Amino acid sequence: MTRDPLRSVIWDKGTLWILDQRSLPSRVRWIRARDAETVAEAIVTLAVRGAPAIGIAAAYGAALSAGNPGARKKEVLRAIAMLSKTRPTGFNLLYALGRMRAVVSTSGANLKQATEAEAIRLHREDEASCLQMANHGSRLFKSKEVVLTYCHTGGPATGGIGTALGVIKTAFRLSKIAEVFACETRPVGQGARLTVWECTQSGIPVTLICDNMAGALMRTGKVDRVLVGADRITANGDTSNKIGTFGLAVLAFAHGIPFHIVAPYSTIDTSLSNGDEIRIEERPADEVTRATPGLDSVKGFRVWNPAFDVTPGKLVTSFVTDRGILRPPFSLLSKGAKRRQVKV
Amino acid sequence: MTRDPLRSVIWDKGTLWILDQRSLPSRVRWIRARDAETVAEAIVTLAVRGAPAIGIAAAYGAALSAGNPGARKKEVLRAIAMLSKTRPTGFNLLYALGRMRAVVSTSGANLKQATEAEAIRLHREDEASCLQMANHGSRLFKSKEVVLTYCHTGGPATGGIGTALGVIKTAFRLSKIAEVFACETRPVGQGARLTVWECTQSGIPVTLICDNMAGALMRTGKVDRVLVGADRITANGDTSNKIGTFGLAVLAFAHGIPFHIVAPYSTIDTSLSNGDEIRIEERPADEVTRATPGLDSVKGFRVWNPAFDVTPGKLVTSFVTDRGILRPPFSLLSKGAKRRQVKV
Repeated sequence: MTRDPLRSVIWDKGTLWILDQRSLPSRVRWIRARDAETVAEAIVTLAVRGAPAIGIAAAYGAALSAGNPGARKKEVLRAIAMLSKTRPTGFNLLYALGRMRAVVSTSGANLKQATEAEAIRLHREDEASCLQMANHGSRLFKSKEVVLTYCHTGGPATGGIGTALGVIKTAFRLSKIAEVFACETRPVGQGARLTVWECTQSGIPVTLICDNMAGALMRTGKVDRVLVGADRITANGDTSNKIGTFGLAVLAFAHGIPFHIVAPYSTIDTSLSNGDEIRIEERPADEVTRATPGLDSVKGFRVWNPAFDVTPGKLVTSFVTDRGILRPPFSLLSKGAKRRQVKV
Repeated sequence: MTRDPLRSVIWDKGTLWILDQRSLPSRVRWIRARDAETVAEAIVTLAVRGAPAIGIAAAYGAALSAGNPGARKKEVLRAIAMLSKTRPTGFNLLYALGRMRAVVSTSGANLKQATEAEAIRLHREDEASCLQMANHGSRLFKSKEVVLTYCHTGGPATGGIGTALGVIKTAFRLSKIAEVFACETRPVGQGARLTVWECTQSGIPVTLICDNMAGALMRTGKVDRVLVGADRITANGDTSNKIGTFGLAVLAFAHGIPFHIVAPYSTIDTSLSNGDEIRIEERPADEVTRATPGLDSVKGFRVWNPAFDVTPGKLVTSFVTDRGILRPPFSLLSKGAKRRQVKV
């Protein structure tokens, strides 16, 4: 089996191979998952990250739990419940597990095959969705634009070529993008570690900046457009994405630079009316402090480490989805759309 | 001699002791400087940093060059020219060296004593200026406010108790501040390494955040006020300060949070009409990349690492100086003020 380093997960004869994104770009390391618990741990520890990739990995995790000899529905539903609690903010996880739950409920003796088929279907759908986003999104660009992006939204963050970075890679091949600026994305460094690496792999000229340099960069007039991903989008367009996205959106707005969210339609959670209802994950202090030598010798200070923030929908120029380029409110847009009901 | 770790430099019988801020908070290490070249190297390598501290260190550097047996004016002026090129953005360096140059020009056989006396005078003036800023600035606060600050503007950044952090420490002692949020300040980490440490030394409750979390923090409604320092302020109030300050100012403006610059009056360069005329220092790529393990294995990408940005004066609520709380244009305010002409 060939393990393409630009893929988040590979399903191979009942085993899930998870690309360990924590060791990139130093090493390409794969985690072999044979049970749902290993998948859950990979999600919690950020070995697999990126909202769409998390959803797909969790779906395969559910399929793995159904693969145990003599597995019953109850156990698979328990595994789904366990997987759904791994990370609270992203919606793709709940969407994928909702689909898995529905399949478990309706399947008979073919629990193993049915869950495996549904997980593979989710994976394929995401792969296709990435291509559709790239197709729609690349129409945004005029010629030789300079794009600023944030965090990492490429292959390993999804089941396909990526969301925002998938659009960027496609538009670059069409000569519509000349250059990319990638924000470091503290504290986990997805921009510095993954976006820079994936751009160089794709031959895209990329310049790394610290997150706090985005304002100065925009002020130079160099940035034509900002593209980012999303972890959850509410009915009014409020969007949770990697911490720092909100600040970028405010800066883009202040400079009159178009700001686009790129995400599969399944990232939209129309059950939430606005971003205040999104639960924001807070992560451990040492994720922040370990970058600063000697800080462990200082006692008596606190750390605030929210993993996401919420960007008001009104700061978003448009939402690039697999169903086209949209604007909120999505509850109206989705009227009549054949979107499956999700319940976890 | 007692070496208080909260001091940037100590002049002791013809030797300058420079606190090596690079090794803080892990270790308190002092550099012994007996010539201008050692001082220049300490400035370039960020062993001493903070615009006022740089100016004072450079003034002592000039005095050291005059202390050489048989030193002549020409050599001291050459040392001053060399020191003035160590860092391009901060104005305090040029201001202090302009004062030293004037003394060299007018002094006779007493070159050594005259330059030593002027450097000590500059140091004392900055010490007094810090107290005056703290006095004026602490009047801004109501009661138990929550303050966000950036980079490091405390003792070691100046010749006294600090600029913005000096105000904060004083207002805290007056029970006007309840809590401080400190931004990490990539890539050099002055906030994480120095501000957190100095706050804990002063018993101030402090919470560390990554730079990209400031927007989310402001959105919670917790932040009453933002205080930062300055490296150069132009006639219209445009201010260069540590990279990321501009983004903070835009976010504060968007949230209606007062945003104050705290700096000695000598930071104001009325020879420049606006911030476009300020030269922004760009620093080496590895200052950014070394925080990301494995990034050295990735080839073919660029890094943009400006050390400062420019905040438009219109985004600044007020300027806290030793001469009071001011607003631009300063050319009008300074009319009739006995400000020495600076020329380097």
